[in-house]
Amino acid sequence: MKLTEISPNDSDAETGQQTRPTPFIHSIRVGWADCDPAEIAFTGRIPNFALEAIDIWWQQHVGLDWYQLNIDRNIGTPFVHMSVDFKSPVTPRHRLECEVSLIHIGNSSVQHSVRGIQAGVLCFEGRFVSTFVDAKQMKTRPPPADILAALNLHL
Amino acid sequence: MKLTEISPNDSDAETGQQTRPTPFIHSIRVGWADCDPAEIAFTGRIPNFALEAIDIWWQQHVGLDWYQLNIDRNIGTPFVHMSVDFKSPVTPRHRLECEVSLIHIGNSSVQHSVRGIQAGVLCFEGRFVSTFVDAKQMKTRPPPADILAALNLHL
Amino acid sequence: MKLTEISPNDSDAETGQQTRPTPFIHSIRVGWADCDPAEIAFTGRIPNFALEAIDIWWQQHVGLDWYQLNIDRNIGTPFVHMSVDFKSPVTPRHRLECEVSLIHIGNSSVQHSVRGIQAGVLCFEGRFVSTFVDAKQMKTRPPPADILAALNLHL
Amino acid sequence: MKLTEISPNDSDAETGQQTRPTPFIHSIRVGWADCDPAEIAFTGRIPNFALEAIDIWWQQHVGLDWYQLNIDRNIGTPFVHMSVDFKSPVTPRHRLECEVSLIHIGNSSVQHSVRGIQAGVLCFEGRFVSTFVDAKQMKTRPPPADILAALNLHL
Repeated sequence: MKLTEISPNDSDAETGQQTRPTPFIHSIRVGWADCDPAEIAFTGRIPNFALEAIDIWWQQHVGLDWYQLNIDRNIGTPFVHMSVDFKSPVTPRHRLECEVSLIHIGNSSVQHSVRGIQAGVLCFEGRFVSTFVDAKQMKTRPPPADILAALNLHL
Repeated sequence: MKLTEISPNDSDAETGQQTRPTPFIHSIRVGWADCDPAEIAFTGRIPNFALEAIDIWWQQHVGLDWYQLNIDRNIGTPFVHMSVDFKSPVTPRHRLECEVSLIHIGNSSVQHSVRGIQAGVLCFEGRFVSTFVDAKQMKTRPPPADILAALNLHL
Repeated sequence: MKLTEISPNDSDAETGQQTRPTPFIHSIRVGWADCDPAEIAFTGRIPNFALEAIDIWWQQHVGLDWYQLNIDRNIGTPFVHMSVDFKSPVTPRHRLECEVSLIHIGNSSVQHSVRGIQAGVLCFEGRFVSTFVDAKQMKTRPPPADILAALNLHL
Repeated sequence: MKLTEISPNDSDAETGQQTRPTPFIHSIRVGWADCDPAEIAFTGRIPNFALEAIDIWWQQHVGLDWYQLNIDRNIGTPFVHMSVDFKSPVTPRHRLECEVSLIHIGNSSVQHSVRGIQAGVLCFEGRFVSTFVDAKQMKTRPPPADILAALNLHL
């Protein structure tokens, strides 16, 4: 599970055109259960919100969520890195709109950004890097051709 | 909740002596409830393990955990940043030893590192930055003198 | 926080008519994060699914969720009892439709049933009893008139 | 996953002696992360505390926790029932001592009680019933002889 080199996305280099698709938005209801005595979502919930949004990004853009990737295709995508900047508290007062973008595809890794927004205010932004592995053997591998093709459509 | 400038710890500069205390170890039992279908601890659990270890670090080193800081002293310590590198899967096969170190004290912020180790293998390492706020008003403030003094003993 | 006597709902007794409203359905996406190594939702997640559904029932039927009840109205609704029968595993293969019904209103308590259904199969059914308390003092109290009136519309 | 008949424990009937072992106590640290804005442990956390205590009961009394039972022995123990009475709020002010007792062994099921106690005050008590299944096939089966023997020592 070593992180491979991640090359920058240069697919638009030749044309110079902006082809990046509209970011995917996953809307989350934040509730009582998510909050700590400070009356805001507990810090430890935030990465979980972002991970849920990325899992659903997979389902919507590749046609397979993590459960299906693992169980049906024997492809795991363990994370090798996450970093999150917390900008403003997340509360139950508004929906949490999680904006997910695919930002890099490496030889055997993939990188997403997630921005969490409530009522127009940026609450957090994070970067999440995962690798492709053979799920049973937990050994790094490149993504299968069909999955790579689907990912490339959304970079 | 803007993160203030974080100045490097130079308290040892004059003497040149190594005075940093032994890192604090919080030992966690990883179980079935923490694991996903890949048979390893779910990624979203890892920041929660680290946060639990930092909360207990406060209790042991400052004499107040987050609950006491907030409820009894009206001091909040919301996080403004976390970054985690995942090096090796966390499993229920071994205890997870979380090694917590205080690495920086800023004017109104504090920074910890957490390294998670199982059976001698580094599973993850992370960096967590939080600010001091008036808990009721959620406004940045410097730490009270007694808390700052206690923190300085463990830098 | 003693549970008061819960009197059976006899509001339909005079007319003999069936006036109970259609049960409220809250639809939950079950994902990788909810599952344990048995590849099904972890038992400890199920009460949390049901609680989320009840929290949203409050929002839809009374106009206040638990967060608003507590923070804005100083009304807490701590649970005094839950019981759940698990009938069939919950998996990420289908949406989990949580059917919530208000089944009793006592002097200072309220009781809901939750049935969790996936693809037409009953996965679990549970009963959840909570009391009304003054949130700051944590002392049992009857519900305010407007909240009682709203509840009575949905019994 | 139908729950089989659970026969009462009558192993002491002949001798009339009290042989039930001292209940197992698993001590849990309750923290900030467990609490909701009411400044007490969130209801949905309580069943998780009890389940953790039962999982560790298995480890201590049978020599196998749920992870080992499933992965190493292909034995699953899915829950078919839980009921919990909440008597007093759980807070971070004290350790939560979870007292676990095995109360029944059926043909293919097992039943535990868990009592959660803080500073001598009973906070909750619950009853948890699980069945034995072939983990891969998810089909009910009796427990293997060695596991049954270990369980019988602790009834």
